[in-house]
Amino acid sequence: MSGKLTYKQSGVDTKEAQAFVSDISTHVKRTQQNRKLHQAFGLFAAAYDLSSYSEPVIVTGCDGVGTKTEILFELDMLETAGKDLVAMNVNDILTTGGDPLLFLDYLGISNLETERPRITRLVAGMCDYLQDCNCILAGGETAEMPGVVPENIVELSGFCIGCAEKKDLIDPTTVTTGDILIGYKSDGFHANGWSLVRRVIEENPDVISESDLRTLLAPTRLYHDVVNDMRSMNIIPKAYAHITGGGLPENLERFLGDYGADLVIPAWDNEGAQKILAYVDEHDRFNTFNMGIGWVAIVKPEDVEQAVKAGPGGTVIGTLRPGHGINVTVK
Amino acid sequence: MSGKLTYKQSGVDTKEAQAFVSDISTHVKRTQQNRKLHQAFGLFAAAYDLSSYSEPVIVTGCDGVGTKTEILFELDMLETAGKDLVAMNVNDILTTGGDPLLFLDYLGISNLETERPRITRLVAGMCDYLQDCNCILAGGETAEMPGVVPENIVELSGFCIGCAEKKDLIDPTTVTTGDILIGYKSDGFHANGWSLVRRVIEENPDVISESDLRTLLAPTRLYHDVVNDMRSMNIIPKAYAHITGGGLPENLERFLGDYGADLVIPAWDNEGAQKILAYVDEHDRFNTFNMGIGWVAIVKPEDVEQAVKAGPGGTVIGTLRPGHGINVTVK
Repeated sequence: MSGKLTYKQSGVDTKEAQAFVSDISTHVKRTQQNRKLHQAFGLFAAAYDLSSYSEPVIVTGCDGVGTKTEILFELDMLETAGKDLVAMNVNDILTTGGDPLLFLDYLGISNLETERPRITRLVAGMCDYLQDCNCILAGGETAEMPGVVPENIVELSGFCIGCAEKKDLIDPTTVTTGDILIGYKSDGFHANGWSLVRRVIEENPDVISESDLRTLLAPTRLYHDVVNDMRSMNIIPKAYAHITGGGLPENLERFLGDYGADLVIPAWDNEGAQKILAYVDEHDRFNTFNMGIGWVAIVKPEDVEQAVKAGPGGTVIGTLRPGHGINVTVK
Repeated sequence: MSGKLTYKQSGVDTKEAQAFVSDISTHVKRTQQNRKLHQAFGLFAAAYDLSSYSEPVIVTGCDGVGTKTEILFELDMLETAGKDLVAMNVNDILTTGGDPLLFLDYLGISNLETERPRITRLVAGMCDYLQDCNCILAGGETAEMPGVVPENIVELSGFCIGCAEKKDLIDPTTVTTGDILIGYKSDGFHANGWSLVRRVIEENPDVISESDLRTLLAPTRLYHDVVNDMRSMNIIPKAYAHITGGGLPENLERFLGDYGADLVIPAWDNEGAQKILAYVDEHDRFNTFNMGIGWVAIVKPEDVEQAVKAGPGGTVIGTLRPGHGINVTVK
């Protein structure tokens, strides 16, 4: 049928898609060493059996890596982008007291043939983190969209599903005056505020060396270590907060209602971050970045002594008081 | 602090994000008229209580709208993009026998202030379809990514979670020789094969009028009507298939194993589609498009008479035989 168009001629190659599924299969298997899928349904949907729970409540969230991806791709740090995607989603699930069970990723690219090696590395990074927290890579979509997605860009979003027994759900409405806020160290800016970081670097190209920048681009810390240690110690916190865009104020105020706190945090021991912060508005830095604290647990006073030892990097940063609002000062 | 950069100056406006959440709140409420979320956890993750199920199995999938979005945005058909996103995901969940319970969306845009009216319409379209199938808009992420997402483009992906009692899961491994395949009409190309359609239109600008094109862009049909009718009739099909990219052959072969069928389908009663198909390779049209059949149920012979009446547009298209492979001819 000469003169008639094939799907491949329009820029979509279904054989490449099958080859990609094969490329990532060993990585996907790494995420099913303990937990297993129930049935795969010829790939229309993945199934997971919750019948061992007596009163299951599922928890779910969705997130991306934001404009950090652009710098990560420029510096060929694909594995880091995969880890960031997982951590941004899994940490949100961990705030509920639920176990992260299933993760799905969406990758939008311009051309699968040219991008296959890069997105395979991205998925490998995802699976490193998923394996760490015992969460299955249950599915995903790799969409080849010539003309829609710019070349060398990977559109990236992720979704995570967790589950908890109803009685074990963390209930942030139980917080009260006198509860203690414990902050846990971040590993850098994580995956928030990079539009601002990029702008600082654009306007001040010599502010930071490439090696400092690479350190600053470390993947978002996965806080399953803190959560697992709390469980081992039989501590049930009143609330957890994942400190993302909006910083400590916005991420705590969103659930604290009529309570607030005057936080005092340690100076951020991160040379690269400090170089960037010197060019950022003093108010916005606290309302954009995590400022060295990527995770907060709110606990009863009697649990503090143990809880600061959960995971590495815990420190008391404040006490809950009546009155809305989070203020932050540096020690 | 003159001379120091704010987050807004770098292109990200957190106040706009709050305003957008307010814009869509009435639409989101429409999706919670029957089912309700259990707890919202200050928005880190949404929770849904499954404790009324005795042996719950959750089912999940992730999909986008592909390059169809580009034409939809050019023609300002934002609501259709939202409906497509929901249908592409919900239909996959429906293949398992599970109820679609929770939906989450990811929207990546260049500028929230300029895009707010458009993405509000997109979410309204999503909620129309979600309301139809009683599925909650449980969360999502709207990522403002100046410099990464091109202007006027909305990166779009969705994610759906359903649940079934373990005993009610549809099990495609039960198919056997003599089972009957029933096809149900599609509403157009749905959201697959648009890279090829766009290429045909680019090379042959006069092939189709704008009004024919708008008809062809009708949202992906949501097949909850077929599934609900089957339940009312107490018919449990052996399998369902959602016919997306790859057409009837790929979407049936992926779970049929050593069985196959020689399908005879009705000529596609869609003027716009026929005009496009005239320019498409005869082999690729069956392996790219749904060719007028967007959903297939495989049932026992004794269930056929009733099952063809489920939802509108059902017709017998073939009988399962031993031997791998799906061949399709037009009546």
